[in-house]
Amino acid sequence: MSHQHIIEGIYSDVQPFFGRGKVADYIPALARVRPDQLGIALQTLDGQTAVAGDSEIRFSIQSISKTFTLALAFALEGNDLWKRVGVEPSGNPFNSLVQLEFENGKPRNPFINAGALVVTDVLCRHYDDPKSVILNLIRSLAGSDDISFDEEVAASEKATGFRNQSLAWFLKSCGNLHSDVDTVLDVYFHQCSIAMNCRELSRAFLFLANHGVHPYTGEAMLTRSQAKRLNAILLTCGFYDQAGEFAFRVGMPGKSGVGGGVAAFIPGELAVAVWSPELNEHGNSVVGMQVLEWFTTRTGRSIF
Amino acid sequence: MSHQHIIEGIYSDVQPFFGRGKVADYIPALARVRPDQLGIALQTLDGQTAVAGDSEIRFSIQSISKTFTLALAFALEGNDLWKRVGVEPSGNPFNSLVQLEFENGKPRNPFINAGALVVTDVLCRHYDDPKSVILNLIRSLAGSDDISFDEEVAASEKATGFRNQSLAWFLKSCGNLHSDVDTVLDVYFHQCSIAMNCRELSRAFLFLANHGVHPYTGEAMLTRSQAKRLNAILLTCGFYDQAGEFAFRVGMPGKSGVGGGVAAFIPGELAVAVWSPELNEHGNSVVGMQVLEWFTTRTGRSIF
Amino acid sequence: MSHQHIIEGIYSDVQPFFGRGKVADYIPALARVRPDQLGIALQTLDGQTAVAGDSEIRFSIQSISKTFTLALAFALEGNDLWKRVGVEPSGNPFNSLVQLEFENGKPRNPFINAGALVVTDVLCRHYDDPKSVILNLIRSLAGSDDISFDEEVAASEKATGFRNQSLAWFLKSCGNLHSDVDTVLDVYFHQCSIAMNCRELSRAFLFLANHGVHPYTGEAMLTRSQAKRLNAILLTCGFYDQAGEFAFRVGMPGKSGVGGGVAAFIPGELAVAVWSPELNEHGNSVVGMQVLEWFTTRTGRSIF
Amino acid sequence: MSHQHIIEGIYSDVQPFFGRGKVADYIPALARVRPDQLGIALQTLDGQTAVAGDSEIRFSIQSISKTFTLALAFALEGNDLWKRVGVEPSGNPFNSLVQLEFENGKPRNPFINAGALVVTDVLCRHYDDPKSVILNLIRSLAGSDDISFDEEVAASEKATGFRNQSLAWFLKSCGNLHSDVDTVLDVYFHQCSIAMNCRELSRAFLFLANHGVHPYTGEAMLTRSQAKRLNAILLTCGFYDQAGEFAFRVGMPGKSGVGGGVAAFIPGELAVAVWSPELNEHGNSVVGMQVLEWFTTRTGRSIF
Repeated sequence: MSHQHIIEGIYSDVQPFFGRGKVADYIPALARVRPDQLGIALQTLDGQTAVAGDSEIRFSIQSISKTFTLALAFALEGNDLWKRVGVEPSGNPFNSLVQLEFENGKPRNPFINAGALVVTDVLCRHYDDPKSVILNLIRSLAGSDDISFDEEVAASEKATGFRNQSLAWFLKSCGNLHSDVDTVLDVYFHQCSIAMNCRELSRAFLFLANHGVHPYTGEAMLTRSQAKRLNAILLTCGFYDQAGEFAFRVGMPGKSGVGGGVAAFIPGELAVAVWSPELNEHGNSVVGMQVLEWFTTRTGRSIF
Repeated sequence: MSHQHIIEGIYSDVQPFFGRGKVADYIPALARVRPDQLGIALQTLDGQTAVAGDSEIRFSIQSISKTFTLALAFALEGNDLWKRVGVEPSGNPFNSLVQLEFENGKPRNPFINAGALVVTDVLCRHYDDPKSVILNLIRSLAGSDDISFDEEVAASEKATGFRNQSLAWFLKSCGNLHSDVDTVLDVYFHQCSIAMNCRELSRAFLFLANHGVHPYTGEAMLTRSQAKRLNAILLTCGFYDQAGEFAFRVGMPGKSGVGGGVAAFIPGELAVAVWSPELNEHGNSVVGMQVLEWFTTRTGRSIF
Repeated sequence: MSHQHIIEGIYSDVQPFFGRGKVADYIPALARVRPDQLGIALQTLDGQTAVAGDSEIRFSIQSISKTFTLALAFALEGNDLWKRVGVEPSGNPFNSLVQLEFENGKPRNPFINAGALVVTDVLCRHYDDPKSVILNLIRSLAGSDDISFDEEVAASEKATGFRNQSLAWFLKSCGNLHSDVDTVLDVYFHQCSIAMNCRELSRAFLFLANHGVHPYTGEAMLTRSQAKRLNAILLTCGFYDQAGEFAFRVGMPGKSGVGGGVAAFIPGELAVAVWSPELNEHGNSVVGMQVLEWFTTRTGRSIF
Repeated sequence: MSHQHIIEGIYSDVQPFFGRGKVADYIPALARVRPDQLGIALQTLDGQTAVAGDSEIRFSIQSISKTFTLALAFALEGNDLWKRVGVEPSGNPFNSLVQLEFENGKPRNPFINAGALVVTDVLCRHYDDPKSVILNLIRSLAGSDDISFDEEVAASEKATGFRNQSLAWFLKSCGNLHSDVDTVLDVYFHQCSIAMNCRELSRAFLFLANHGVHPYTGEAMLTRSQAKRLNAILLTCGFYDQAGEFAFRVGMPGKSGVGGGVAAFIPGELAVAVWSPELNEHGNSVVGMQVLEWFTTRTGRSIF
């Protein structure tokens, strides 16, 4: 059965799952998104594509952006990066500050907020204009020059992001944030605000399935060993305190965001992006997770 | 390059890593094991084998046994099992009792001791003689009829296993241990005492690479979906609080034990077992982890 | 106004507070106690007494017994005792095992269960028949030769005390319990089962108000400095995770038990015991705490 | 023996305790204080005084200031204050953020930094110029019109107070900080910078020994019941995670600061202030605690 066929089947079967989650409502721009939307897009390394539903509607990628900033920072710093941020699952719903305090300001992994702030700090030290570097990478990977920051979202995040302020100051108190707190937060809130659609996002994740090599330019963004490592962190840490559950049900490395997006991939084969804004209590898309679970079950494909 | 060639190369290159760890010394039978031993064995699904070093010397498999008891309990209970034990990484070096208390006696995953005790409790409720069931499964998978419990090790574990006593009583206080505490601990200490060599262990793990199907009898021990799930738990939780590190460096699901054994596999391809008794501070074999890291790096094969 | 007058006034005013708590129900002997009972008894160092209500009905003193065992162990070991148990408030509703694990088996203070088990272990090492020693001390202090263990309560505690089993084994795994686990638990369950009435209990606490000197025999059970220290621990740790609240509202050192008893005192002046079986969510008597709050407010007497 | 005699004896005997601690060094103004200084001053309610050593040298009162701001806020808000901050000991060396996160932004008590920030926030909402209000209160209690903020200290605290920034933003993220973060921190850093000597400090604490009544003006700053409550919190929470130890060894309510000051008192009798800059690992003055322990031991006076 073709990928297009499988995806259309899942799109149809998953309809009863709407209404089981709740759209993120901590900022107005996210709260007013219509909940009953679903986009799916798949892209294989050998050039096949499949799409269903609202695959052309852009949404706020939020934490999915941490994947791209991590790839940039890992390429810049190599394994030195892991002196400042760990690679272990946080294992805690109460992750944010508790573990960070126990572990003296070294975030457990680069996908919890504290870890992502350290990663962004790396970019702030290396680049004069880190926001442009991040945006240009994503545009190039996605093949869309008009992907942009959503300034309204970025401003809202800033106005309400007290917890991230607290995290950043905490990191600074531990000596693990070298740039200005305001500078790092500005970049961070902007990277989270980037708006993409599923088609673009599945393309943008393909370099991870391609062992770190940009699939269109052929540039090795990461070494094969680095790509293995990044993919492993995505699998073990990419879904907050539901990472084990995602590996268990879906069996692919990937990353989610509170905008309702989920991107995942099978190394050597393909990348897939799903978007549906209703979240479960862990902050992951209810419908998105179900789509991906059925995708690996029905294709019999997963990394396991 | 053949697997035999690669393994011999790693065997030779890894020699400088001896002396960096410490043999488990909490019971005499483990403490008197010679530290500078190393066995490696590989077995592919299509029948190739490769061995190096002390691959015929038996050692105490300890926590590796949790893989087999989990497979048995999962087959018996299906997804009901996850009502009593979770699938998330514990994420804590201080895992044992802290999380268990926070989470009201539902162990974070089946590979921390508390979770393994619940799994063993399942077997105690289903079988009159759970010790024989466990031993027979392992003999059949490994193709060796003389694999046995080491009664001296089991007795030593019992005489010194105060922490496991504490865990078992804690589970009982939470209503998550239905058999007698003494019965469950007796089975548990025996399963940990099983002695195998690397050749046997690599064979015994091959059913996991084979999506749950016994590679010699063809019997489906687990469904394909169950095998995916079990493999995912091994990847995210199989190496105590170093699971992220193992996925990151090695990129294979697997399981370690404080006897110095490590077994890992690539679904659809092969299983590999390494044994070297010196442990790092996380309780994982120093040399064993290095061997497996080089194995995936040099073959360019991993699940990522 | 006389103490008798004040106590009668409080007895009358506190009636509306019945029905706000819940009788301990984890063992049948406690569960079947009539909830709407209230006894109050006061005893001054200069020989005055005052009583109200059910002051002659005996109840299970439970954790109040920890005060007497601590006095015995402190007298035996002096300040060496504090190498095995601390003097800081636990500060945690989740005290039992979490802190104990963090702090490597040294209980935070002698009034959490783990600490009381260590104290009982001290007595088990010093005395051939620690149960008789404890009982005889209490009989002598209370002036009642027929105070006894309630064997039904002790047996019920043993049959259901899985959490205490877990704690004792945990302490043993940390090397902080030297006697047999079963021996220590047997003494512990018996000391908790002792039945006394308020009149007896107020007399039995008078030695603490008397700076460690037995008020009837004149024997110095503790030095003045030791008495200061014991009283301080009672104030900071005597009411589980509500110790701050009790100091704040009542302002006297004291000790409570899940049988509904509370004993407190003002050094140099008097001791008072209250019993009412309905407990709040912290395990302290609802009516008992209210009686004592009004007692210090209406008399204008407290240690502050 | 007169108080003057006792204090002089202790002053002499405590000399060997110098060199056992470490002067606070996180800001230059504190780090350059000569370590081998010791001032003692005592003031009774009936007008006696006693002094020894460097009792006229002013030092940074730091956290001792939290006593005065709490008295102000309690007088303003009454028991409503306890909706925003608790009265239980924190019980944790790792108190700052861990408990705060568990308990959703309600600080455990008003003497940990988070709790003191909430108290300061109360003053910021009630007063146009909270800094003057605080300073005027202290001047009036101490009877010294030239007590002032040390602007260098306040500026240094601000420049390095990343952890307090983090705490304040965390409180704001939980809705428990109503004023601007910068405003609250400015007041907080100033109150900590106030410089006083022991003679002034012992006078300034006398209102607490006097059940809330200003001993010179006769004004009731707190009701008798409020004074009891404030004193109880000082006893159970006034010495960070060493509160139990202080109650145990010294047996007086009091408050310490990282400038090396300690103030304590016996209700109805007297207040005493000690200053010596070397701190133990809990942030309390080594020599100061010893002085106070000997004071209660040698006088036979304490609240217990």
